[in-house]
Amino acid sequence: MNVEIHTPDRSLAADLQQRIDRKTKPLGALGRLEPLALQLGLIQQTLTPELRQPHIMVFAGDHGAARAGISAFPQDVTWQMVENFLAGGAAINVFCRQMGLGLTVIDSGVNHEFGRRDGLIGAKVGNGTANYLEEPAMSAGQRDAALARGRELAYALAANGCNVVGFGEMGIGNTAAASLLTHCLVGSERGADLATITGRGTGLDDAGLVRKRELLGQALTRGGRPTDPLSALAEYGGFEIAMMAGAMLGAAEKRMTLLIDGFIVTSALLVAHAIAPQILPYCVFAHRSKEPGHTAQLKHFGVGPLMELDLRLGEGTGAALAFPLLQAAVNFLNEMASFDSAGVSDQGA
Amino acid sequence: MNVEIHTPDRSLAADLQQRIDRKTKPLGALGRLEPLALQLGLIQQTLTPELRQPHIMVFAGDHGAARAGISAFPQDVTWQMVENFLAGGAAINVFCRQMGLGLTVIDSGVNHEFGRRDGLIGAKVGNGTANYLEEPAMSAGQRDAALARGRELAYALAANGCNVVGFGEMGIGNTAAASLLTHCLVGSERGADLATITGRGTGLDDAGLVRKRELLGQALTRGGRPTDPLSALAEYGGFEIAMMAGAMLGAAEKRMTLLIDGFIVTSALLVAHAIAPQILPYCVFAHRSKEPGHTAQLKHFGVGPLMELDLRLGEGTGAALAFPLLQAAVNFLNEMASFDSAGVSDQGA
Repeated sequence: MNVEIHTPDRSLAADLQQRIDRKTKPLGALGRLEPLALQLGLIQQTLTPELRQPHIMVFAGDHGAARAGISAFPQDVTWQMVENFLAGGAAINVFCRQMGLGLTVIDSGVNHEFGRRDGLIGAKVGNGTANYLEEPAMSAGQRDAALARGRELAYALAANGCNVVGFGEMGIGNTAAASLLTHCLVGSERGADLATITGRGTGLDDAGLVRKRELLGQALTRGGRPTDPLSALAEYGGFEIAMMAGAMLGAAEKRMTLLIDGFIVTSALLVAHAIAPQILPYCVFAHRSKEPGHTAQLKHFGVGPLMELDLRLGEGTGAALAFPLLQAAVNFLNEMASFDSAGVSDQGA
Repeated sequence: MNVEIHTPDRSLAADLQQRIDRKTKPLGALGRLEPLALQLGLIQQTLTPELRQPHIMVFAGDHGAARAGISAFPQDVTWQMVENFLAGGAAINVFCRQMGLGLTVIDSGVNHEFGRRDGLIGAKVGNGTANYLEEPAMSAGQRDAALARGRELAYALAANGCNVVGFGEMGIGNTAAASLLTHCLVGSERGADLATITGRGTGLDDAGLVRKRELLGQALTRGGRPTDPLSALAEYGGFEIAMMAGAMLGAAEKRMTLLIDGFIVTSALLVAHAIAPQILPYCVFAHRSKEPGHTAQLKHFGVGPLMELDLRLGEGTGAALAFPLLQAAVNFLNEMASFDSAGVSDQGA
């Protein structure tokens, strides 16, 4: 995959910082919103960034390993929740409506036939992945098709005028896949040993958690620990994770701002980042998930998230909830008066 | 002051919790939004709470002690920033516009004559407080007038249909007053010794911070450490802090939701809470200020804030930025489908 992501030119940074510092507030008093405003200005290479047609993409897919008992919910919940998205009744629908965000749901590989439906993009790579306890989750061909399709979807969003995209997912069993990917791409030696980064997902009890860890250990015994992103993705990934990684790469190629949600979305970013490290300056980390592996991922990237709300729902809900903070960063930069324009005395004057 | 705040009846709690738990999401997966939805339901005594005509009140006042060098900015910045509010150029204007919040600015005692102005409520108790390094900041009469006027302002807001109000402030020198109030009402023995809770305010350098701490020590030598709220308020408070405390009491009497901003706003809540502890269930804590005393205050109340953005701007900006999370809590409760209504399989089904 020949990805061309340009690292944002930092020559505007000094001018952006001065614009931030001349606003009518004590230096640095807007805290985390100030570096965020700087980042958005650099991504868009302007002193007056704008968030245009903000959008959430939710990728859905099933996991063959779900049938082995790695989730508290049955696999059918994946397609049932996709139906819930299409009917407007899920949390991500509620938050997108509230925040004025567009929402696209992508069937990357749900084990269910939806037919043609309004609001659903049919991009099925297969009817769920294979069971990684027995064989690789997907073939190289399936993986590459998922990455390519995701990239195209991001290009299409950019072509429609969108310049900020949040990522979300739905897939029973996908915290397990995310744990395996994180273990492969971050590694025990950097705080991502499997026990630490395997959590309760949608709500396993203690016995269920023990079983999930055992099963993931068995998967690693079979498939090993590939440390290159494409091999790890084929071995343990999900179609929704692969397609999301492709969409992230495509979005960064188009210089969009990427709003990163929780544990599973960040596992897709691990893949995308290992393919093209220049993706990182385009990413805003929305929140810290309660799923324990998310902290190891954030540490791997050396970043702190905007919010810590103990969310563990997925669907892109954390990304949607953080969106007003991005808008606030842009708005203060564009709309606040400066000391000069407002006639307010400066510090120490 | 005869305050009548009813503690919210908790008999609805079980029904509210069940309504939250039947939404199409894993149990508890919306994290901090779930207890917030419960709290809002209890405040409004309904399974379907609504946020009506949300509003930010910004109280402005000057402090006699500001002339002694306790702030990085000159006292004139108070009235200049009020002018900035009236012109729409301050951070709080930007965030209120973004979030759809009403904004009222109250001159509680700025050392400046504004005359009649659109968007400004003239409620001046005096042209700034007296210098607490030399004498009590205000008389008992001034204090009681400020409290009473604040309460009336909250009643008027409630009469206009508002049921959620965020509090903000502007007053050069008011982090110093807030430190003194926090020291009096929380106390060294509970983590609020003056050195710990005196911070840089709008941006003092190291030498300025040392001087601020010395001056506040001198103030305490003169005025002592009154531990009853009314005495502490008269000794060290500001007119904006006193009026805000009155408004908080009035708002809770009217069963409004109180959105608490940072260090200075929480010092007003310390006063209001010492007068009527039943106020606490009506309060939502928006964020943790970077001003170090705020953490001691939050600990005193035994609460965690919704956001940690390292803000230290005041004006109610943290309250405004947290508002979408309150709206999200209400919206998920009212708009999300349940497992039953959406036909989604439940956990363990």
